[in-house]
Formats: sequence, C-alpha cells, structure tokens
Amino acid sequence: MVNVGVLGATGMVGQRFIQLLDSHPDFNLTSLTASSRSAGKRYEDATTWYLDDSMPESVKDIVVTDTNVDEVSYDVDILFSSLPTETAAIVEPKFAKNYIVASNASAMRMEKDVPLVIPEVNHEFLDLIEIQQKNRGWDGFIVTNPNCSTIALTLTLKPIYDNFNIKKVYVSTMQAVSGAGYSGVSSMAIIDNLIPYIGSEEEKMESETLQLLGSIENGKISNANFRISASCHRVAVIDGHTEAVFVELEDNANIGDIKTKMSNFKSLPQELDLYSAPKNPIIIKEEDDRPQPRLDRNSSNGMGVTVGRLRKDIISNNSFKYVLVGHNTIRGAAGASILNAELINKTIL
Amino acid sequence: MVNVGVLGATGMVGQRFIQLLDSHPDFNLTSLTASSRSAGKRYEDATTWYLDDSMPESVKDIVVTDTNVDEVSYDVDILFSSLPTETAAIVEPKFAKNYIVASNASAMRMEKDVPLVIPEVNHEFLDLIEIQQKNRGWDGFIVTNPNCSTIALTLTLKPIYDNFNIKKVYVSTMQAVSGAGYSGVSSMAIIDNLIPYIGSEEEKMESETLQLLGSIENGKISNANFRISASCHRVAVIDGHTEAVFVELEDNANIGDIKTKMSNFKSLPQELDLYSAPKNPIIIKEEDDRPQPRLDRNSSNGMGVTVGRLRKDIISNNSFKYVLVGHNTIRGAAGASILNAELINKTIL
Amino acid sequence: MVNVGVLGATGMVGQRFIQLLDSHPDFNLTSLTASSRSAGKRYEDATTWYLDDSMPESVKDIVVTDTNVDEVSYDVDILFSSLPTETAAIVEPKFAKNYIVASNASAMRMEKDVPLVIPEVNHEFLDLIEIQQKNRGWDGFIVTNPNCSTIALTLTLKPIYDNFNIKKVYVSTMQAVSGAGYSGVSSMAIIDNLIPYIGSEEEKMESETLQLLGSIENGKISNANFRISASCHRVAVIDGHTEAVFVELEDNANIGDIKTKMSNFKSLPQELDLYSAPKNPIIIKEEDDRPQPRLDRNSSNGMGVTVGRLRKDIISNNSFKYVLVGHNTIRGAAGASILNAELINKTIL
Amino acid sequence: MVNVGVLGATGMVGQRFIQLLDSHPDFNLTSLTASSRSAGKRYEDATTWYLDDSMPESVKDIVVTDTNVDEVSYDVDILFSSLPTETAAIVEPKFAKNYIVASNASAMRMEKDVPLVIPEVNHEFLDLIEIQQKNRGWDGFIVTNPNCSTIALTLTLKPIYDNFNIKKVYVSTMQAVSGAGYSGVSSMAIIDNLIPYIGSEEEKMESETLQLLGSIENGKISNANFRISASCHRVAVIDGHTEAVFVELEDNANIGDIKTKMSNFKSLPQELDLYSAPKNPIIIKEEDDRPQPRLDRNSSNGMGVTVGRLRKDIISNNSFKYVLVGHNTIRGAAGASILNAELINKTIL
Repeated sequence: MVNVGVLGATGMVGQRFIQLLDSHPDFNLTSLTASSRSAGKRYEDATTWYLDDSMPESVKDIVVTDTNVDEVSYDVDILFSSLPTETAAIVEPKFAKNYIVASNASAMRMEKDVPLVIPEVNHEFLDLIEIQQKNRGWDGFIVTNPNCSTIALTLTLKPIYDNFNIKKVYVSTMQAVSGAGYSGVSSMAIIDNLIPYIGSEEEKMESETLQLLGSIENGKISNANFRISASCHRVAVIDGHTEAVFVELEDNANIGDIKTKMSNFKSLPQELDLYSAPKNPIIIKEEDDRPQPRLDRNSSNGMGVTVGRLRKDIISNNSFKYVLVGHNTIRGAAGASILNAELINKTIL
Repeated sequence: MVNVGVLGATGMVGQRFIQLLDSHPDFNLTSLTASSRSAGKRYEDATTWYLDDSMPESVKDIVVTDTNVDEVSYDVDILFSSLPTETAAIVEPKFAKNYIVASNASAMRMEKDVPLVIPEVNHEFLDLIEIQQKNRGWDGFIVTNPNCSTIALTLTLKPIYDNFNIKKVYVSTMQAVSGAGYSGVSSMAIIDNLIPYIGSEEEKMESETLQLLGSIENGKISNANFRISASCHRVAVIDGHTEAVFVELEDNANIGDIKTKMSNFKSLPQELDLYSAPKNPIIIKEEDDRPQPRLDRNSSNGMGVTVGRLRKDIISNNSFKYVLVGHNTIRGAAGASILNAELINKTIL
Repeated sequence: MVNVGVLGATGMVGQRFIQLLDSHPDFNLTSLTASSRSAGKRYEDATTWYLDDSMPESVKDIVVTDTNVDEVSYDVDILFSSLPTETAAIVEPKFAKNYIVASNASAMRMEKDVPLVIPEVNHEFLDLIEIQQKNRGWDGFIVTNPNCSTIALTLTLKPIYDNFNIKKVYVSTMQAVSGAGYSGVSSMAIIDNLIPYIGSEEEKMESETLQLLGSIENGKISNANFRISASCHRVAVIDGHTEAVFVELEDNANIGDIKTKMSNFKSLPQELDLYSAPKNPIIIKEEDDRPQPRLDRNSSNGMGVTVGRLRKDIISNNSFKYVLVGHNTIRGAAGASILNAELINKTIL
Repeated sequence: MVNVGVLGATGMVGQRFIQLLDSHPDFNLTSLTASSRSAGKRYEDATTWYLDDSMPESVKDIVVTDTNVDEVSYDVDILFSSLPTETAAIVEPKFAKNYIVASNASAMRMEKDVPLVIPEVNHEFLDLIEIQQKNRGWDGFIVTNPNCSTIALTLTLKPIYDNFNIKKVYVSTMQAVSGAGYSGVSSMAIIDNLIPYIGSEEEKMESETLQLLGSIENGKISNANFRISASCHRVAVIDGHTEAVFVELEDNANIGDIKTKMSNFKSLPQELDLYSAPKNPIIIKEEDDRPQPRLDRNSSNGMGVTVGRLRKDIISNNSFKYVLVGHNTIRGAAGASILNAELINKTIL
C-alpha cells in the first residue's frame, strides 16, 4: 500500500478524491490539506459534504493541515491536488520537491516539462518526468490531467485519430454545474435557463486536445495536426458533461468501421489492469436518445465515456457526428488523477 | 379588421396564437377549433391554460368547434393552424378551398406549391400562392412557416448569406421543452438530465434552411448552395431555443463586418411596419454570458432573435461562431404564422 | 431460494423491483409480466429502462408474459405487484388463488381481510392472512404496503406513538415526480414550478396512517386514536419524498426523549435480520439543512427514513416538529413489498 | 411627482425596485446607491441585470453613489432600501434624519417606534411615525415591510382574523430561490433537491404575523392572540413563494363564508386606489392544481396573492386548509415598500 494525501480536500473534487480512494486497493489515504480556515479541524468538522454517498468513516477523524504551510511533512508518496489554480501554481512546485503530485489543477498543465496525461491516450508523455526532475532538481514530480470536457472528448477521438485522418473537429458542450465547484453556478442562473459561456473552457479544449493526441520525441511534444473548435455551455445538470461532436476526416467515413474502432478501443491501463481503468473506455449506445447524463455518467464507475448517436453527417461524405457523456468530476477530474497515479505506481515506482 | 380563427386552439401553440391575437390591431379572433372531445364547450371549459399570462377574457366564451367536421362554415378570412401533423395533412387542404390557412404544422411545408416563408427571409416565395390556387382549384391557400429551431437559425444566417459566401454551417441546439408540446417531455426525462435527440428535427433544420435561403424563379425554388449539419438536444428550459452556430465562409471572416450586417439587418416586414415585426430581427449582445433563454427569449415581444458570443473561430481564417436564442413558441411558431398572415394581409388581400 | 415474479415489470416501480431483486439472497426472479403490448418480447426489448444503474443482465432475456392472460402458470411462490390500480383490482385476486401476492398497488389495501403492512410498524396485521384465505377460499393471499408518503411518515411516528400520546399530526409534503410514474408529471408542469395537488394522496395519508398505527384483535383492526391532516405537493425532485411534520402530544414534548426513541427504534425486521431491513429505520441528522432528498434518499440502500430539524414547536409546550426524507420508490414502494415478502418468507412460509 | 432613490440598487430586490418604479405615475427615480465598488459608475456599467424584462433605459445613465458615504445629499423625498441587514442597521437611521426611508430590510423592523406595515393589514401602525420622529429627533422617518413569506401569509389571514376567531395556524413554505439573493442558493444545492431550512425565516413568520395582525393604541402595539408555527423550505423555483396553511378556528369553519370573506377582502389601498394596489388582494382559484408559482406569481402585476385548495380540514370541525402563492420579490419585497410609500404619499405627505 502506498500512502497518499489530498491537497484541497474539502472542495467538490477533493471530496471525489476521498470517495474514490476510500476502498482503493493500492492507495492508503492518510493526509488531507485545505485552507487555513479548516486547518486543525477534524475533516468531518471542516467539511460540508456534497456527495450522494455519505462521507467515508475512515477520513472523518483525519486532522486537516494548511495547504500553504511549508513546514508540515507528510508520510505519503503521492499527493493528489484539487487546488484552485492560483494556489496550485505556488504550492505544487514546492510539494514536487519531495512528493509525486498528481494534479487536477490547470496551473502546471502547459509547462513544457510537465506531462499532461490521459493514460489511455498518451501514457508515453510520462517520459517528461525524468526531464522535469533534472530541469528542476526535484526528487518528486508533477503529473497533470486535462480539463474535464477535454478528457471525455479526447478519449473518444483517440481511436479515430489512430485509425483515420482527422481534418477538423467541432464540439459543442452541455456541461454540468459541478464543474464550476459547489458555489460556481447560482440557482438563479440555471433554473429554466442555460449559460452559453464557461471562462477559458473553449481555449483549453482547443489546445489540450491537440497536445494529448500529439507525439513525444526526445522530450519534445508535437501537437496533432488537425483543427478543432469548441463552443461551451452550462446546463441544469448536476454531474456529467454532454458533448455534440462533428468530425471531418480526410477520407470517406465508414460508420461501421468507426464504431468498431471506438468500441474495441483499449490501451495500456486496460492491459495493466489498473484498478480504476474501465474495461472499455468507450461504451457505444445504440438507442436514439442516449447518452443521457443522468443515466450514463456512472458507466464503469464513472470512468467510462458513453457515445451515442454515431451517424453519418450529411455535410460531406467524409463526415460523421456523435454525442458523448462523461462524468466530469470522476473521469474528468479526481478519477483522472488517480488513474495517472495508478499508472505511475505500476510502471515507475 | 379581418376575422380569423385558430385550428387546434387548446394546445400549447394554440394558446400562444390566442395570446398574441388578443390585442391584435388587424385581426379579430372569432373562431376556435379543437378535437371532438372539446367541441361544443366554451373555450374556458375545454382548456387547461398553460401560459404565464392568464387566458384572455375575449376567448373564454367562444364555443369550440370540431376541427374534423366539414359542414361548419367560419366567418373568417384567415385560419391559423397549430394542428398535429397528421390532422393538418387531412384538414388543411379542405380549409384551403375557402380560407387562407397560415399554418405552423409541418404537413404541407414540403409541397412544391406551398410557400414555406419567413417574411424577413424569403417573402418572395409567396409567389407560389397563385400557382397553388391554380394547381388545386382553391379559392383560399396555404402558407406555412418553418420549424422553430430553423426559423431562429435562418434569420441569423440571412444577412450573412446575403453579404458573404457561406460554405458550411454546423449547428448544435439546446431546445426548450415547450417545443414538444405540453406532455411531450416527462419531468423524469429532464430533471438533472438532457435528451440528445429530437425526432426529425435535424433533418428539418438541414432541409428547410437551404430552401428558405434559396431563390424562386417562375415558381421553382432553387436551394441555397452550402452545406449544413445539425445536432439537436432537449434541455431543462421552458421556452427559448439556444443554438451554437459555427460558420465557415469561402473567404476571410471579419467579425466587425458580420456584426454590422447582422445588427443592421432589416427586411420587408420592417419596411411595411407589420404589427408583429420586431424593429430589429437580430439583437446583438456583447456580454460574454449572453444570450440566455430565460433573459433573452422575450426580446421584441418574443419576435427578435438574440445573438451573442459572435467571435472568430480558431479553426480557420474563414470561420466564425456565435450563439443565438429565439422564442420557440412565439417567433418559432404562433408568432411566425401571424407575421406571415400580416404580410399577406398587407400585400395580397 | 424462493422463485418470484413481478407483475407490471416494465414501469417505474417494476424496474425498482427488478433492481432490488437482482442480487437478493433469498429470492430468485424468474417471471415478468406486463401489458399485452410487451408480452412475448424479451424484457430488454420490451422496456425503456429509467434507472441510473443499468438493467441487470439476469432479466434481459426473460420473456415477458401478459398480465391479463389467465392460462399462464408461473413457477413462483411470490408475485410482486406494481400494477396500476384498475388492473390490480382485477388480476390480484385471481393470482391470489395460487400465489402470494405482495402488492404495492392501492386496489386491495382497504379490504378488511387484506393486511396493509409496514413490517416495523404492524407486522401483527399478517394475522389477517388466515382469515383472508378462509373468507375467499384461496391457497395464496394478498399482502399490501401503504402509499409511499404514508410509509415514511408512519415509520417516524411509530416510536412516538408507542412512547407518547399523540393528539394531532399536521404534515405537508414535497414529493418527487417519480411517484407519479414515468409520464405522470410533464416537464412543463414542474420546471420553475411546483404542483400543490396530488390526487387522493392526502386521503390515503390520513386514513392509512391511523390504520397502520392501530391494533388488531380477533382479526378486527382498531385505528389509532388521533387526528391527522395532510397537504400534498409535487416538486422538481426525481426521487425522495420530503415531509414537514408538526406533532401535538397530549403532554409536554421533550425533544431529547423523542430523539432517543426515534434513533433507537428497531422492530421485528431488525430482530429477524431481514435482508432489506435497515439497521436503523430512522436516521437522525443534526445539521440544520438536512434531510435533503438528493443527499439522504439512499440512506440504508433507500430503506431508511432520515429525520432532521427535530425541534420544539413554539405553538405549545406539547408540540414539536421535524422534517423527513424517504425514498419513494424504494422504501415507499418496491422495497416495501420486498420487505413484506421477506417477513412472510421468514415467519410464515 | 415625488423624487425617489433606491439604496442598494444593484442587487436582486434593488432591480425589482427599478423595474417597478420605471413607469410609476407618482414617483420619479433619480438616485441610486450601491457599495463602494459600484460607486461612480453608470448604473448600466455597475450592474449585471437579472430580470426577464430588460433594464429600463431611464436608469442606465444614472451615476451610482456609495451607500456608505455620508456627505452626499440626494434630491429626493423617499429612499427605498433593499440593503443587506448589517448595512441597513447603520445607514437607514442616518438617512432617516432627512428622508423618508421605505425599507425592505429587516434591520429596523422590530424597533418599537418603527412601523412594520402591510397597507391592507395594519395601515394604522403608521401612527408610530410621529412618535419615531419625536423619539429620535428626525425630520424623516423609517417605515418597513415584513419578510416576503410573512406578507403573503398575513394578507390571506387578515380577512379570516377579522371575521372569525383564529386559534392556531400551521404553515409550511416552499420558497423561491430569488428570496436568498442572486448568489444565495447554489445550483448544486437545488437541482433534483430541496433545502429544508432558511435561516431565521420561521422565527420571522412566527413573530411578524402576530404583530401585523395586532392593534395599536397610544403608540403601543398589542400582538394578535393566537398561535402560529412555521416550517420553511427552499425549492427549485425562481420567483413565487408557495405556502401550505392549516388554520384552526375557535368555532366551526364554514368554507363558503371563509371564501367569501377572502375574495371580497379590500382595504385602504383599494379605497384610495393606490397605483400598486391590486384590485383584489386575494385571488381565489377553484382548480384543484392551483395556485402554482410559475402561473400565479404575476397576478395583479405580482401584487396579488393567489389562494387555492381552500377546503375543510378533516382534523376537526373548526379547521380548514389552503395553499397560497405570492410573488416574493414584488408583493414580498420591492412592491411592498412601494405600496407603503404610496400610502404615505397619499395620506401623510
């Protein structure tokens, strides 16, 4: 068992980390940090628990430490981070001197020597770790996972990218409110309404996707070579991002082939049989009216992405379209960092 | 004053007709039809009223007649139709022998001699009326308006189509539940959820848009010559369809130009100062988080379409994208038929 | 293992039966019935599955039979019924000739020889079974459970009734839409809205509660002797009924005592360690803002009722009030029938 | 025309003040204050507008002043206050030295010399103004209106209190999220959920109601002499509080009589024909499923309270129950203060 901790443990994603780590066979959760306001309190006293499943007994008595205090030393190998961007930018590098930081924060994602990884998509980017440690003189290191909407999209594009020539991708999202944190979206803003804007989300989807599908050689990443455009919207859904995806290939699109490649898609996490890895990263639904966030977000314990309405697109012979649903705080956040850590634990530690 | 009636007066769109006609300066509502179940009852007794504004006093005592009974003769010139498709297919042609039928039903939309019209977009299609009457030997005629999501989209594409060369359009919709009729979407289907499918909606958007932007010569319509692809989704919103639109032009896209053409767009209904015509068919919003259905659906009494997030698209130099909101049961249904009737009343009767 | 079947297996409560029976240690689900429309089809083909967990593999291939066809014989001992009232009134008596019918339908609840039972509250009413079989010459029998909102209320009143003298109870409910069946509440009716009326619900709560808390002697039931008034309302919640309860006692109300009696409450199902019985039927929450339906409905696998805001009532020294949440389609429907069957299986079969 | 201003003009209730004052025949809106962050900006630039109707043109260019800066002098007679409690406690007494403050804040409501008034219920409490001015040496004065849920309840109880002997009232509320301010209720808290707690709300309903129905003699208020208990809950509704009310009289309850007294109820605002006064403060609905917040909140421009389901209560011969809906930010907040000011303008100024 590897001892682990969670940085920013009282927030929405922090709670998902705790929920997912509760019965983990390889990771033993021993440390929790939060802001100074919570420091010194038992986790149960410091936290308003938001999830449907109740707070695991095992964390209630853990005394929360202050994320920002340097002197604390943690008896852990891995620290999961669900810190706000600004805090992450400051403290993650400090922690990386001694610990492995598996981060869901966006602060370090675009650093040239910090791997941005989805284990099924670009596990080879972990090669950057050695460079990172050398560059920065750290004993630990930082590994990051992408933005929630990017992860779901990129997982479904991966078998297409590997087997066909993608020319363009248009994606229009309908994202759950949990993606903005507990207080991120007011009820006044979303009842009988939707918000056609999520700050920086489109930019993240447009840049991260191309990097994730790119290649790495001698520590240098070459982005994938196609065009992508995103339009991001917030809807009245608790968990589960839905995305309408339009793909133009360079060549003729054969729906049968595409479907086969998507449903058969497996990668390293499946080969290594990592604990959180879904048996099939992509689940294809044939019903007209699926996927739906409430019915499909929990597929494969929230780690699978469900694809439906896969169909030819009238716009050209080379085009097709589909709809996907992925759980934004599991596959798209806490579960993504944990899968990264499982991969590191199995292949590097 | 022209006497008018409403076919299918008890349903959701029927009620919008009644609401909009209540204080109309040119139309005097005298006749209401519904299914045999309601026939013979006072309208107030036959109807569960769904709208926020209460039922107009003037219609409460009108005795509802049976849509399907042939012998009734109506003292009206114009019959507005919000009939279900199957019923419309049967009765609209019968009524057209003697009356002008301004229909929101889809049954007759694709008939070659039946004009499918948005007054701001293709009023010249009314030339088909003469042909229709000749072909069919009718004294009256049928004029139709498009599907709700098509109307909002096409209104915003019109000034672009007229001033630039459109190559491709992708549109992803987030549509209100009222579009499916009162019982069309169960609460179980939409709370904490969305439905990524609306039967025939994508096909309608893809075909109707090209026809509406087409041209007519000697009674023959030539479709507009670009490609369009739609993905349609239902979200937890009462009224107001939101659409994310991606446009590729043949040439460089200049956002300033496009914005000017959209916000300055006016057409025949504005020139004729038709009662229901919005002063500006397209309202541009500059705020990042607009348009929103609850805040923008009622613009210009529900007859304006609000456009926001108009921006360059990273996907190519020739591309831009935007989000629109239009009221689906006003601009997209009852108000559309009424505006058609106002145009006919002013230019033909 | 006892073979069991579900009557009305394709509806909302039917699906809950299937979900709860899937891994049941004592019951083996072998038969499923539905309307003639579904008869002859595989269950998977006959059913649109509404629950978040996916359809159990074990039922997909079961061929659905027609509920209304008499000649079918089922290789089961127990038939769970989630039939509509009218169908239940006709077919449950037929099935009771040969099978045990554990019914969630209201049709037979108020028959004098049919036990209406919550195992924790009035298991002794099962004495009626012998009388029922004698009266009607049946080899099987019918046992029923109460209405969903009644079950949650009565469970919380039971320890109060047993230990104090209740004078009056006022209850105002905020009920989930699933209680009305999949198509029972339109999305148009509930988004940004609530419906202050549920047909017959108040009458059921007012009559069933007094019967359940009553006593039985020589096969005759005497109702509990206090007054109860209900006001029932539908709100935009998928699952989980919330009820605000005001209780007047004959004597001084001591909150500490009441809380102890509620949280310590156990009964026969707990003693017998029935599979579906919650360890504690009533869970007390101390947080100001609990219970909440989304967070508390799944307590004890949906079989516990969560009570919060237990407080003195300013209205008199003898008064107190609280709020409860119970899962309406588990504890309040399918789970209730299954717990009845477990009790019968352990004590009678 | 009387010049008026709004204190706290950028918030939810502040916006309602502006909307309602826009076309007011007697009040001319000239001054707007907000926090220092907004001070110095044009109102349009300082404000994110939340209401469905768009921001009135007339206020866009008004330069916002800082509520907390003493030196500003306003060319107004009346200042409407929608300040947060803590700010109101500090600044309202300062403003009252020179201006009439018609306040929706709760800070000064329970001061012995500050009238808490609903014009239809207890306009005679305005007698306190003279005492207040004398006590405090002010040229202006403060008049307050009650809490939103109290106003709707008390309006419906007034004709009952005046004509029958009320013994007890139980009320269970289902309140709209706008009552908590724009950011008061997170979307995570209310989608597929409800919150069974609103801080201090029950206490306000229980104390304010008895005061409002009380009497005043020589400047001393005697509370009404019955018992009242409230349980308050937040539901997924934008605007419009719904309340389930149970009333016990000392004597037999005759529903016909009660209904007549309610529907005929008129008071001083109706006699004086005040601009914002509804023709009938109480509207009775006979339909089973009314009142509903979305359909009934705007009755009489949001100033009427709609009562439905008025029925005998089985709990005793002296009991009855009903459901009410009132608009919480119009009748329950901004409209209440404006009606108070209209009454003062007509009777005192």
